[in-house]
Amino acid sequence: MRLTFYERVGFEGRRPSPFSWRIRYALAHKHIDFDVHPVRFADAETIRRLSGQHLTPIIDDNGKVTHETWDIANYLEDRFPDRPSLFGGVAGKGMARFINVWSDTQLSPPLRRVIYADFPAVLDPGDRAYFRSTRERDLGMSLEEACADPESKLTAFQQACVPIERTLAVQPYISGSAPAYADYVVFSVFQMARLGCPKEVVAKGSALADWRTRMILLYDRLGNRFPAYPR
Amino acid sequence: MRLTFYERVGFEGRRPSPFSWRIRYALAHKHIDFDVHPVRFADAETIRRLSGQHLTPIIDDNGKVTHETWDIANYLEDRFPDRPSLFGGVAGKGMARFINVWSDTQLSPPLRRVIYADFPAVLDPGDRAYFRSTRERDLGMSLEEACADPESKLTAFQQACVPIERTLAVQPYISGSAPAYADYVVFSVFQMARLGCPKEVVAKGSALADWRTRMILLYDRLGNRFPAYPR
Repeated sequence: MRLTFYERVGFEGRRPSPFSWRIRYALAHKHIDFDVHPVRFADAETIRRLSGQHLTPIIDDNGKVTHETWDIANYLEDRFPDRPSLFGGVAGKGMARFINVWSDTQLSPPLRRVIYADFPAVLDPGDRAYFRSTRERDLGMSLEEACADPESKLTAFQQACVPIERTLAVQPYISGSAPAYADYVVFSVFQMARLGCPKEVVAKGSALADWRTRMILLYDRLGNRFPAYPR
Repeated sequence: MRLTFYERVGFEGRRPSPFSWRIRYALAHKHIDFDVHPVRFADAETIRRLSGQHLTPIIDDNGKVTHETWDIANYLEDRFPDRPSLFGGVAGKGMARFINVWSDTQLSPPLRRVIYADFPAVLDPGDRAYFRSTRERDLGMSLEEACADPESKLTAFQQACVPIERTLAVQPYISGSAPAYADYVVFSVFQMARLGCPKEVVAKGSALADWRTRMILLYDRLGNRFPAYPR
């Protein structure tokens, strides 16, 4: 039986979740066939029944259920050892984890201050109130307040991007000569940005912009398989 | 003939340069014997004659001279392929470079705002004026002005340390289960901090503090081989 991928789906089939994107790319990297089970925020009970917690994505591999993207990536790496490696070995796995943590703690938070006011429109209309209330509780302010003074917010995000830009100026991927899981993690943040808001957050002509284009085109244009931000 | 390591030396044999530390650890990791040629800022002409530029460290391997720490690490990796790897493969080398760039652009700059006012005392007295004038020119202000409001400067540095702390809370080294070049790069910044100023910059009891202790003790207590900050 094929693996089932429980994935958050937004407005009219959109896929703005960065966590889904990193697993989609990991599945493609390992040439794994899978079925998609789309879920909405409102389906938290289904997810909780399966995995004991409410966050997506989760994967179900013939009854073996895994949640948390880092754990899913590790599960796929161990379950399909003969397919291309996501990490390139033990040291690579350690460093990929550091880059994953860096992305979650230093790259995503300033991005949210750039895109969150625009983000609800990409969600299923039935999910928007849930998203707004949980995020505003975490932020301690409204989405619009969090995104006030947009120029300074964009500057802060681009400052966080400096190590990506400098790395990609001297090598084609964060993982060196070919893409691997660290690239998928960082790219997933830029997918959230380009699919979840109408603004461009990447400087034209930058090494980062070129890398993002290469990443979008991987695996038969995987990064463009779903519709863009609604206009 | 043994390899020669040209290394900046400070006050009475001290070694505060983070660039030297990452190469010292790389040499130890690969079990490479070497001779040290100590240099001071005042010896820029010697370094320039050898390497065509003025920064240390440099290595001379029987007339093959390499500068830039990243290039030196790569030279050692390729020259001694049968010794333990600094990167753990191609993907690991790519990610180590990202972590190196991250450390240079996001970790070191806030640290300098914590320690620079104290730093001249660890340098050879003949090098202090050179250090002060070049750094003050780069900063656009005096070392003391750069370090004003020390509590906010320490907070900014510790904010930059968050991905290190979170990673080390779940695995023993940045490179996973064993130390490698990414650890040496990040550790070198903390060596600069502990040897170059009298303040403690790492929170007691943190995963980062434990890792730093393990790093100091590696290779026969390599991190403590030279004298501490002068008191």
